[in-house]
Amino acid sequence: MASVLILILKSDATESQIQHVIERVESLGFGAHLSRGTFRTIIGLIGDEQRLQSEPLSAIPGVCQVVPVMPPYKLASLDAHPQPSVVDVGGVPVGGGQLAMIAGPCAVEEPERMLRIAMAVKAAGANIYRGGAYKPRTSPYSFQGLGEDGLKILRDVGDTCGMPIVTEVTDPRNVETVARYADLLQIGARNMQNFVLLTEVGQSNKPVLLKRGMSATIVDWLMSAEYVLAQGNPNVILCERGIKSFDPSTRNLFDVAAVPVVKGLSHLPVIVDPSHATGKPALIPPCALAGVAAGADGVHIEVHDQPEVAKSDGPQALLPEQYAEVADQIRQLAALLGKTIAPLPSATSPGN
Amino acid sequence: MASVLILILKSDATESQIQHVIERVESLGFGAHLSRGTFRTIIGLIGDEQRLQSEPLSAIPGVCQVVPVMPPYKLASLDAHPQPSVVDVGGVPVGGGQLAMIAGPCAVEEPERMLRIAMAVKAAGANIYRGGAYKPRTSPYSFQGLGEDGLKILRDVGDTCGMPIVTEVTDPRNVETVARYADLLQIGARNMQNFVLLTEVGQSNKPVLLKRGMSATIVDWLMSAEYVLAQGNPNVILCERGIKSFDPSTRNLFDVAAVPVVKGLSHLPVIVDPSHATGKPALIPPCALAGVAAGADGVHIEVHDQPEVAKSDGPQALLPEQYAEVADQIRQLAALLGKTIAPLPSATSPGN
Amino acid sequence: MASVLILILKSDATESQIQHVIERVESLGFGAHLSRGTFRTIIGLIGDEQRLQSEPLSAIPGVCQVVPVMPPYKLASLDAHPQPSVVDVGGVPVGGGQLAMIAGPCAVEEPERMLRIAMAVKAAGANIYRGGAYKPRTSPYSFQGLGEDGLKILRDVGDTCGMPIVTEVTDPRNVETVARYADLLQIGARNMQNFVLLTEVGQSNKPVLLKRGMSATIVDWLMSAEYVLAQGNPNVILCERGIKSFDPSTRNLFDVAAVPVVKGLSHLPVIVDPSHATGKPALIPPCALAGVAAGADGVHIEVHDQPEVAKSDGPQALLPEQYAEVADQIRQLAALLGKTIAPLPSATSPGN
Amino acid sequence: MASVLILILKSDATESQIQHVIERVESLGFGAHLSRGTFRTIIGLIGDEQRLQSEPLSAIPGVCQVVPVMPPYKLASLDAHPQPSVVDVGGVPVGGGQLAMIAGPCAVEEPERMLRIAMAVKAAGANIYRGGAYKPRTSPYSFQGLGEDGLKILRDVGDTCGMPIVTEVTDPRNVETVARYADLLQIGARNMQNFVLLTEVGQSNKPVLLKRGMSATIVDWLMSAEYVLAQGNPNVILCERGIKSFDPSTRNLFDVAAVPVVKGLSHLPVIVDPSHATGKPALIPPCALAGVAAGADGVHIEVHDQPEVAKSDGPQALLPEQYAEVADQIRQLAALLGKTIAPLPSATSPGN
Repeated sequence: MASVLILILKSDATESQIQHVIERVESLGFGAHLSRGTFRTIIGLIGDEQRLQSEPLSAIPGVCQVVPVMPPYKLASLDAHPQPSVVDVGGVPVGGGQLAMIAGPCAVEEPERMLRIAMAVKAAGANIYRGGAYKPRTSPYSFQGLGEDGLKILRDVGDTCGMPIVTEVTDPRNVETVARYADLLQIGARNMQNFVLLTEVGQSNKPVLLKRGMSATIVDWLMSAEYVLAQGNPNVILCERGIKSFDPSTRNLFDVAAVPVVKGLSHLPVIVDPSHATGKPALIPPCALAGVAAGADGVHIEVHDQPEVAKSDGPQALLPEQYAEVADQIRQLAALLGKTIAPLPSATSPGN
Repeated sequence: MASVLILILKSDATESQIQHVIERVESLGFGAHLSRGTFRTIIGLIGDEQRLQSEPLSAIPGVCQVVPVMPPYKLASLDAHPQPSVVDVGGVPVGGGQLAMIAGPCAVEEPERMLRIAMAVKAAGANIYRGGAYKPRTSPYSFQGLGEDGLKILRDVGDTCGMPIVTEVTDPRNVETVARYADLLQIGARNMQNFVLLTEVGQSNKPVLLKRGMSATIVDWLMSAEYVLAQGNPNVILCERGIKSFDPSTRNLFDVAAVPVVKGLSHLPVIVDPSHATGKPALIPPCALAGVAAGADGVHIEVHDQPEVAKSDGPQALLPEQYAEVADQIRQLAALLGKTIAPLPSATSPGN
Repeated sequence: MASVLILILKSDATESQIQHVIERVESLGFGAHLSRGTFRTIIGLIGDEQRLQSEPLSAIPGVCQVVPVMPPYKLASLDAHPQPSVVDVGGVPVGGGQLAMIAGPCAVEEPERMLRIAMAVKAAGANIYRGGAYKPRTSPYSFQGLGEDGLKILRDVGDTCGMPIVTEVTDPRNVETVARYADLLQIGARNMQNFVLLTEVGQSNKPVLLKRGMSATIVDWLMSAEYVLAQGNPNVILCERGIKSFDPSTRNLFDVAAVPVVKGLSHLPVIVDPSHATGKPALIPPCALAGVAAGADGVHIEVHDQPEVAKSDGPQALLPEQYAEVADQIRQLAALLGKTIAPLPSATSPGN
Repeated sequence: MASVLILILKSDATESQIQHVIERVESLGFGAHLSRGTFRTIIGLIGDEQRLQSEPLSAIPGVCQVVPVMPPYKLASLDAHPQPSVVDVGGVPVGGGQLAMIAGPCAVEEPERMLRIAMAVKAAGANIYRGGAYKPRTSPYSFQGLGEDGLKILRDVGDTCGMPIVTEVTDPRNVETVARYADLLQIGARNMQNFVLLTEVGQSNKPVLLKRGMSATIVDWLMSAEYVLAQGNPNVILCERGIKSFDPSTRNLFDVAAVPVVKGLSHLPVIVDPSHATGKPALIPPCALAGVAAGADGVHIEVHDQPEVAKSDGPQALLPEQYAEVADQIRQLAALLGKTIAPLPSATSPGN
């Protein structure tokens, strides 16, 4: 595809530098359109989009700045797919006015507790059940998850309750295993630019929940989605979960504006995770509502029935009764916006 | 008031350093409670709160860390005033379930346009009219505002429409003049830690709209409110307007979680300004709704009827018809949350 | 001055929008040069530089992005003054290979202590003495400085020692008073965008030490310098003192690369303040050396002979003997780089 | 190991909550020491360090804040190893006064060019040669590296020149292969919290160059080092390469203070990478010198003999002659600081 890019030359670029720039870009096969201003010379390039993006143009002597005109992602862009995508998660449609309600504990724990929490969040309106079997922990000495045993517990509980399940995958060697159990593969924030892992989940046939990295711009995030899409897997759901900031008031900085920014750039569904964004139970309900009000396609909330004994991230979990209350408010807000909470799949087994 | 503070000593603090710390803090009049752990010694201090906060305790040899237990603001805290404050802005009550709807152009412009925009936003539901007469501009070569002529225009339009007015004050020498015209004095983000100006508006008898600085933590912000309160002026409305971040997708980073964080710490009303937070018209309505959903006591939006000729910040203004649409959504959302848009003052002149 | 600017239109800009953009910019007196790419249309504008920067071009329907080509500052730029400026501070030349060594306590304290510290830092190599008489404190309950009494003490000590003095000014009403005593007027980080104050010091005849705001980009900082320069005062020294970041390891984030970035954009001298940048005595010497190695024109360090009783910022002060050690290392490093510590003024009174 | 931790209770914690907290922490096997202040109650806990860090104490009702006293890393801390570690990289000692000079192109390219650049940087003083065979690129459409063919080229060139080599590993499945060729395994910034990969390189017998993540605090970074150390591999070199910031003046924000901060916390060598930190050739020499002046144990710089045709990151590479100049300045600065550039290994094969 032909595209356009602008080179701004340095104010002291010499005539021979200008000529070298033109020769160099023409030798790369790009068309060059020169405009001389009083202080600066500008060269507009026309050529193949990917090559325009990948050549080291700013290293040509005399070039001051390279201004890209097209976004560097393609498959994720609204240009490629002007209508909002709807991603099917084990029978639950996410996007296009139907909200994902993902809930569950941070880590998969014992089966009885997992079932108890699942029944509670399902009753409150949750439509996808979550739990981590492989936990990326900052400390090597923290609980790292139950592994495949955890996947089995989560699958069993999902099947029992008729809810699709989502769980994180952290190792490219485990993608196949996790995909055997889960309906939705989560890529955590710390792995958002683990391109090896993105490539691997892009080659699976399961939808992917792509959390935003803590220091990722929205363009970085969409580029990571592009990695998955470029492998042939079109089913990506984005999840805003807070970015780094200077204020320790909250665990991360909940970037609610990311929701409408993404909507203006991409067709992919985007949900919010106020649990990780804020890290504090009291802030989760207002931020969940804020996310839906801003246009999010769903909400991801951690729920535990006994946070003080949770194996991971207990301090930021809502109790089931708190979850029921915020889920009810989300339902009313969704109605005001002409949306609904996506229905659970019908009774046939969602895992197969 | 007696309060508590914790000193954590260095792991290699010597016995004589420990003794010196105890002598030093006792000589300052604080009670000292020593706890020796295997690796660290901790000293709990009890004493006068202000002095605990202002003595340079971390400079005492052997001290590793000072952990404050009480927040450094007092009058702004929920401890001082457990109920939400309601601030009267020229007859419009802000807070306690009644929303401020502040709207108007960035800068005061010619009277006809000012009146036209005021009529439009009033019809849409705005209850406080805004416009800058003294503009803090990044460039010394940009339009700096109409000065006192602008104040007169704004006051006249406010009186004609029966709307209280808000305008920014940037110079301590102008506070008296601005207070003569305006119902609400705005302190801009760049002046949030201009303590001279804060002290001056604290001594006026007008309510203050205190915008959050671009790199202010929530504690910094509340401390700036404390400057105003400490002068005897209890009428402060906080305004979240975006903080600095690494992502150029938006002009600033809209910190919607600041709303519930403030609600958990302070009794002061807090509103949101999605115009400055995002800098992009398409993002203003979703972020305005997000702010209200998160519990904000009002919304500040810039409106201009011809943004491409606006004297300041045209590119981020909503058109009156766009404002009417988002105001209508805010009204419905407020109802869902059990709140209302605050009524305009009755017909008697609001300026007196 | 004629300059150049680029408008990038939206990918879905209609033909009539393109025509409107051209008409609009031509009606503003700008020349318009259209380039149509496959996906985007680009319009290069030529016209008066200040007007190109101040018109709300991005508000014209169909415009996606405005790309400025010239920097928004002029007098501060290397284009305006290609040689490094040397600023005379009470007889001490700063810039052009001569280093400012600013040292002293955070706040002016009692005369005996002030003299004692001054003698010590002078002996170590300091050439400008510092101390705050008006302290911008985050808390209204902290020590706010001795005011004009403090100015007198500082001036007396400076005269006694034959050192020029620098002190902060925070109130436009005090500029004249402070300028009567001080050789160098400091604008603190929190006031970097207090444009009223910048204008006032620009109208004084004293050099200005402009600290970088905690969330100021380098362009913002140079624009604030431009405010001073535009008033006719060419004597501005920039001071990097740390910016906001997400890591609480240091008080602020010391942006040492700001030094060479400024050198590539501006002729103004730029010094570093590792005391405020790091907030921790152990980090001050290595960061001072890093600043000089990166090309800084001086170093600002807080020194106190009894940090545990300092009235302000004691925990981040160096002891005089620690200062002597780092000053010695700076002297050697300067020699390696072909620079010297600027000499003190000769014995005639430095205050005139 | 027994350690200490502090719980600060909420100001409105009830007596029964206080009792529950004590019961709960005692049931976890911790000793509890209660101190009641006027406004806050504080409980000091003594118990096993890892368990104190991993229990969800802040989720216990009534607990306001958990103040950790010990750092969460152990093997990486100065407590565990008070002397600076020296890491042997294929015969080149790094740390303890001997500087690593890592240089080479971003990506491995054709053998002739690789040899030409290697000879040039070796002559200039480089002692470890770099080049990427597996490139983590933001875009799936960019050049991804030559893979194992690139490893072979790099090894051959290293052997020919007698220089140890470093290259990035991105996939846990490739660690064994990369370790067969390289003397030092690089973990890139985007993988700093790829705990699966960290665990894998921790189990290899090769030293690890751990770049700091773009939004990693220094504690996060040391925790990632801890992952490698905890697997039994003590040979970790840290590399500061710039973090995220709000100022687009530089590609990243070079955190030079991280060097002395790390030195105060850990025994591990820490080097700087001004190429990635700044992204601009003109800034690399001053920032390299700043890093060494701040105490870094080495410098990592990208060098290419024809940046405008480089396959990756050309715009930020130095030319060999520019590298020679900065290497010479580093040598002189090192001498001033009592350090030396580490010598190359003697002539016996460096690959074994």
